[in-house]
Amino acid sequence: KKVGMARLVLKFGGTSVADLARIRTVAEIVTQVWQEGHELAVVLSAMAGETNRLVTLARDAAPLYDVREYDTIVSTGEQVTVGLLAIILQSQGVPARSWLGWQLPLRTNLAHGNASIVEIDRESIEARFASERQVAVVAGFQGLASDGRITTLGRGGSDTSAVALAAALRAERCDIYTDVDGIYTTDPRIVPRARKLDAISHEEMLELASLGAKVLQTRSVSLAMRYGVPLRVVSTFDPQGPGTRVVPEEEIVEEAPVSGVAFARNEAKITLNAVPDRPGVAAAIFERLSKAAINIDMIVQTVSKADATTEMAFTCARSDLARALAEVESLRASVAFGQIDSDDHLAKVSIVGIGMRSNSGVASRMFGVLADKGINIQVITTSEIKVSVLIAEEYLELAVRALHSAFDLDEPVEL
Amino acid sequence: KKVGMARLVLKFGGTSVADLARIRTVAEIVTQVWQEGHELAVVLSAMAGETNRLVTLARDAAPLYDVREYDTIVSTGEQVTVGLLAIILQSQGVPARSWLGWQLPLRTNLAHGNASIVEIDRESIEARFASERQVAVVAGFQGLASDGRITTLGRGGSDTSAVALAAALRAERCDIYTDVDGIYTTDPRIVPRARKLDAISHEEMLELASLGAKVLQTRSVSLAMRYGVPLRVVSTFDPQGPGTRVVPEEEIVEEAPVSGVAFARNEAKITLNAVPDRPGVAAAIFERLSKAAINIDMIVQTVSKADATTEMAFTCARSDLARALAEVESLRASVAFGQIDSDDHLAKVSIVGIGMRSNSGVASRMFGVLADKGINIQVITTSEIKVSVLIAEEYLELAVRALHSAFDLDEPVEL
Repeated sequence: KKVGMARLVLKFGGTSVADLARIRTVAEIVTQVWQEGHELAVVLSAMAGETNRLVTLARDAAPLYDVREYDTIVSTGEQVTVGLLAIILQSQGVPARSWLGWQLPLRTNLAHGNASIVEIDRESIEARFASERQVAVVAGFQGLASDGRITTLGRGGSDTSAVALAAALRAERCDIYTDVDGIYTTDPRIVPRARKLDAISHEEMLELASLGAKVLQTRSVSLAMRYGVPLRVVSTFDPQGPGTRVVPEEEIVEEAPVSGVAFARNEAKITLNAVPDRPGVAAAIFERLSKAAINIDMIVQTVSKADATTEMAFTCARSDLARALAEVESLRASVAFGQIDSDDHLAKVSIVGIGMRSNSGVASRMFGVLADKGINIQVITTSEIKVSVLIAEEYLELAVRALHSAFDLDEPVEL
Repeated sequence: KKVGMARLVLKFGGTSVADLARIRTVAEIVTQVWQEGHELAVVLSAMAGETNRLVTLARDAAPLYDVREYDTIVSTGEQVTVGLLAIILQSQGVPARSWLGWQLPLRTNLAHGNASIVEIDRESIEARFASERQVAVVAGFQGLASDGRITTLGRGGSDTSAVALAAALRAERCDIYTDVDGIYTTDPRIVPRARKLDAISHEEMLELASLGAKVLQTRSVSLAMRYGVPLRVVSTFDPQGPGTRVVPEEEIVEEAPVSGVAFARNEAKITLNAVPDRPGVAAAIFERLSKAAINIDMIVQTVSKADATTEMAFTCARSDLARALAEVESLRASVAFGQIDSDDHLAKVSIVGIGMRSNSGVASRMFGVLADKGINIQVITTSEIKVSVLIAEEYLELAVRALHSAFDLDEPVEL
């Protein structure tokens, strides 16, 4: 391999391959990078809207569909886009070949509809890199299970395919081409002075992704962190832009205490009063909710009161609130708690930054900023690199803007 | 296997699986046949229009597309319908599983875009027949080549898949469900008194198929003949109807001299005058046309004249006439023939019947019937069970009706 030649994985999402015109744009980007001499694997999603169309067909066929057949049906979306890109690349003189999940193979476990990648055979692709400088155009979102059938990786699975392929190929980098030009300190629709980040650590990205930033799927970031795969988020419509690099923590030189402000709307809180303070009560409640597939986020429990009862509060998505209340109510016979309160107009605001590790006082400063604006904090949770608070939803924008300014994230105003 | 239980292959075309409502109709037919205790493999086409949509995408991507990528793209149509039918069958309590070409595998040669079936592995399907009475829902039109990539069998390939699968599974019969209720003595749009045939031999069907009857593809009939697979053509919308059986010749008891009248419009004829009557001339002309992928049908050559020249005439599709004329003209330097004439308003009419073998005089009777109507015959070709004539296209309907009546094919009028 010549100096300066890298092995790269490029991933393009559904809006980037929405029609032939956009696939041609993708082909131009791929051709240009290929002409620079790099070895390339390109991972594609289905055309925007196509996966939804196929999912609807499967669901309309029978609400309780067999997930193996669902996988057979919905995996066709990526099968079409990889064939089309391979044809267009070839017509531009770039050697290219499409690869489906079963052809590589990209092996997954048997969890049809939401499978996890077990192993990727990189030999066929590497052989073509070496012999023809062929571009591997790989169908994202799909794999092959040990039952000999197609699996899909669940929504956003193409990001995961791309990162896993980058890890298997020991690629220098995985570029995620999308419809935004990078990762911002917060949502620019709320804070016009939000800044695009040049670089962010995997860990921070993970917190931002799971907290509601929609650019990268949590699973793919987590995989990139585990295998140390550097990512770059870049716009398909501005491919020369620097984008945002997502890199191992040690590569982040300048550590601001806070890298970004994330938020999630539509949170709901359930408060159980006078819960008996004995072992097993929390387990009973949260097992029941887990079985009902209700995702619980923040949980707080007050210290035991004089009457040996406690107060327990937890949050879930607003759309799950009615089901969660019914599940909890059904436990009243076995767990004799008191009144149940709920609030479904809440939001979660979080500050994230690896700099917090070496910067004490970040949390208290956050609480002070919110207090100054008269915003009441209902629940607090923290991790090593994150502080989250639950507040009334009406204060969301105010809170995000105040925190963004207070932690020096605003884009400097040009004078 | 119990008495009366058969192993059957059922094939449904694109109009039979055009949308979910129609696929449910297919599921009802399959369920009913399955409940009778039979072992079933069901071969499906793509939803009507879907293959065209995918072909257009591939062509629009690049006119000179790579056929391997084309196969990857267009094979998705069948992948969707088999998944949907399997889901619907399962929801009705019928054990079912979809099979793609690469999963069986159905092995083909490497002729991507128009591949031939080499071998079908029937073991997986037979194992599921035995253990679960599972219905195999097989994607038609597709296979797997030795390069590890998907192939397609060319247009109408699903019929071929079904017949080949029936042969591999040693099925008692292959039922072709379509949008007509059987094979007719001729096109009922031209002869309202055309009769539906109860049974026809493979050989006759082959002549009718290649002569323009669109119900069954030539390739699939030829395969059925070679392996002795009995077919039945039946309507998806009248599944209880008897349809038409297509069977080995020895099973046809009552042999009328003529079983049907076939025709093809849009024929063109090229006549070369004063062609040098020496060896190699015909070869030079038809090799050139073959290389240009122009299909030549009838060929006649007059006996050599006193000046050691001959007259040569042949027919092709009207749409190929201009190209054929140009190819022939380009040979004038090497083959010194005289004037070239052409006629592009011709039609071919044929009578077909295995009874001809034991009935002399059928051809002369045909010529007499046409002469009585004042129809001039331009070219005649014959085979053991067929006589074809080329006539001016304006006489087509008249000729078909006259022959249909003369050979006693008209439906008796009820009094």
